[in-house]
Amino acid sequence: MVDYSKKMAIKTLLQSKESMQVTIGGWAEHLVHKGKICFLTVRDSTGKIQVTAIKTKVAESLWNTMISLKNETVVWIVGELKINPQAPGGKEILPTKVEVLNPIHAPVPVDISGKTPMDEGTVYAFRELTIRMPKVKLPFEVKGIVAQATREFFTKRGFTEIFTPSIVATATEGGATMFPIKFFDQDAFLAQSAQFYKQAAITAHEKVFGILPSFRMEKSRTRKHVAEFWQIECEAAFNDHITIMQVLEDLTTFVVNQTIKKAKDLLEQLDAHPKKLTGKFPRIAFKEAKELCTTFDLPDSVDFNSDFTSPEETALSHHFKTPFFITDWPVSTRGIYYRVNDDDPTISNSFDLLAPKGFVELCTGGQRVHEYDKMVEVVKAQGFSLKSYEWYLNLFKYGMPPHAGFGLGIERLVWWICELDTIKQAIMFPRTVDILRP
Amino acid sequence: MVDYSKKMAIKTLLQSKESMQVTIGGWAEHLVHKGKICFLTVRDSTGKIQVTAIKTKVAESLWNTMISLKNETVVWIVGELKINPQAPGGKEILPTKVEVLNPIHAPVPVDISGKTPMDEGTVYAFRELTIRMPKVKLPFEVKGIVAQATREFFTKRGFTEIFTPSIVATATEGGATMFPIKFFDQDAFLAQSAQFYKQAAITAHEKVFGILPSFRMEKSRTRKHVAEFWQIECEAAFNDHITIMQVLEDLTTFVVNQTIKKAKDLLEQLDAHPKKLTGKFPRIAFKEAKELCTTFDLPDSVDFNSDFTSPEETALSHHFKTPFFITDWPVSTRGIYYRVNDDDPTISNSFDLLAPKGFVELCTGGQRVHEYDKMVEVVKAQGFSLKSYEWYLNLFKYGMPPHAGFGLGIERLVWWICELDTIKQAIMFPRTVDILRP
Repeated sequence: MVDYSKKMAIKTLLQSKESMQVTIGGWAEHLVHKGKICFLTVRDSTGKIQVTAIKTKVAESLWNTMISLKNETVVWIVGELKINPQAPGGKEILPTKVEVLNPIHAPVPVDISGKTPMDEGTVYAFRELTIRMPKVKLPFEVKGIVAQATREFFTKRGFTEIFTPSIVATATEGGATMFPIKFFDQDAFLAQSAQFYKQAAITAHEKVFGILPSFRMEKSRTRKHVAEFWQIECEAAFNDHITIMQVLEDLTTFVVNQTIKKAKDLLEQLDAHPKKLTGKFPRIAFKEAKELCTTFDLPDSVDFNSDFTSPEETALSHHFKTPFFITDWPVSTRGIYYRVNDDDPTISNSFDLLAPKGFVELCTGGQRVHEYDKMVEVVKAQGFSLKSYEWYLNLFKYGMPPHAGFGLGIERLVWWICELDTIKQAIMFPRTVDILRP
Repeated sequence: MVDYSKKMAIKTLLQSKESMQVTIGGWAEHLVHKGKICFLTVRDSTGKIQVTAIKTKVAESLWNTMISLKNETVVWIVGELKINPQAPGGKEILPTKVEVLNPIHAPVPVDISGKTPMDEGTVYAFRELTIRMPKVKLPFEVKGIVAQATREFFTKRGFTEIFTPSIVATATEGGATMFPIKFFDQDAFLAQSAQFYKQAAITAHEKVFGILPSFRMEKSRTRKHVAEFWQIECEAAFNDHITIMQVLEDLTTFVVNQTIKKAKDLLEQLDAHPKKLTGKFPRIAFKEAKELCTTFDLPDSVDFNSDFTSPEETALSHHFKTPFFITDWPVSTRGIYYRVNDDDPTISNSFDLLAPKGFVELCTGGQRVHEYDKMVEVVKAQGFSLKSYEWYLNLFKYGMPPHAGFGLGIERLVWWICELDTIKQAIMFPRTVDILRP
């Protein structure tokens, strides 16, 4: 019987200053067998180390096991850790025991070591195997750290964590991107966001957050579209677009700085170099941002009456060194759930947060409509039946406080922090119009 | 314009030792107006306080606003906090400003104060309103604290937090409880658990956890069945049923003790009195547990060849003072994903964790099959096609380490800790065969 409690992380061994008896468990990643010497690279979730056997110095059975190891075989190795400046990482293990915990049953169809170039199609076609590759899995580890920092931020500020349903009967974002489902004998669909439920939750808890799944039937094949993603959802009673923008700025600053600190190692391995933030994100009004766009070299002329085009957004993003807000959106360009400004009825109390350096929009948010009459108009204007929105309208009918909030895609945040190429790289098992498996 | 930053939590005011100028925002919960004096109870998410106006001492407009306030109107009140032993909570506010932030548009159909008895049907029929009631919402706040303690435990132990897909093409628990969905032009369904994906994740990260959604088309109308719930999912490479049972014992102990500490106030309000745990949960083999059952006064005779009946489970639960494990389950009573014991092939390396005092099973877990050949047999025995399980089988074909794990329903944990009547009370917007709205 193997005593699993004896297992040591390879990362720890690589940091050791002296020789010692060690036990490791992991995957045989690469074997080089030259005459009487054999080098085996063993990988665990924390790193890689060389195991070196010399035929004349080890038991015959150990030697025979070593030289017949196939890539990705699960091994359990006991031996002596030696400092050896010639070995990768400056350390090697001289084994006294090599045990196969699980053999493989065919040659592995992809090169987990990452030495063989691999096209994007292969990365996702064999996703269940390619997630073992350090470059592939590191963003998921960063994502865990981002999630923890996010929750730490909100918890310290007295927000209540909520869990909202994914099976819903009320559309939040219009019908085109809904995944329909049969819920027993009723028609339902998957939640496009937690919007309605977090708004309901503030009538109980006032300030709420959650990292919650969203589902959208996005047919676009772009680097930013997936069908299933997780959003950092925030909603707060007795807040407006100005106060919630500050929450978002503080959150982004805290999360990025915590991640830089806690994921230092991971970010280095990813060759990502996010900059520490100091808050004070530039805030630029929609009109000013459009004026700025006229100074860029862009393919089309700037239209002040519609949302930013993709080239405008990218050019603006390159213009800034830190995340920045675009505020004061014309009502005509924004969702009608946002509250219209009291002083200027052409302006919606909403904002976008964009990342610098050509990355995409991170977050949209703002102050919401809280008046019952206005919300009835909103529902009607969407062409929805008042009956099916009855429960949602009840929130507004029976005392909805003024409130504001935002939804920040955690995969977008990880994409930006890790400097990835597409959002899919921030998702272990992404779902797109083309990908349903694994 | 209201300056939301001035808002003070009612809970803080109730703890104050002296008079001071205060600003609150919240809901008008109850108004008593007798001649020249008017008492208004205002509720925010943290508590309730009395606002007292005497007609001769306040402005006429303030008086008129006060006496016309309907229940659940959203109000903003500025005034002086006074110590008054005769007021509920020993404090009251003498208002200098009362502003209506949002009026109501019809009498509220339920009594949020909780003074009027309410049947269970009404609680869920008006869920969007009843979540404002302290007794209803407190378990959700406890749930947030349980979730944080859970993540703190796993993070400290070096587990990686994972996010798994809810839209899947591969069944984990058999077809009867699957919610089918159309994913673009393909057939898919909602994940019954994160089982397959957390198993995949250990080949990248070794030790993983997540609090993740599960969907089951449960047609039963019982106090423990819902169609959508969240599980504390844990899976660890290089672990077996013995080592993972210890992780579960340590987790349960940490989470319960942290919750007792951090949610002291909430648990008191719920009149729940969970006991601090010291670990060392009793471990009783299936056969012994059945023998114990023969000593109880039960309606039916004890069958040693099948799972525990509901009365047996309840009686066993009443027998113990702390959570306890049932181990050494006969292979015939358990899922075939569990690994068969090396020393005794009639025993499955799995366990259940049960709560004491008549509460239900909290968690099932154990060591999983890791050998490719055995997993092929398992998939065939379920009647599934090898083709549709190809990606999952690849995990085992190409080096799956020995591993173990468990899934612990967070709502069951909250149900037990908060001493609730049904699992629905631990879910803000539950989904059952009868409930799809709100």
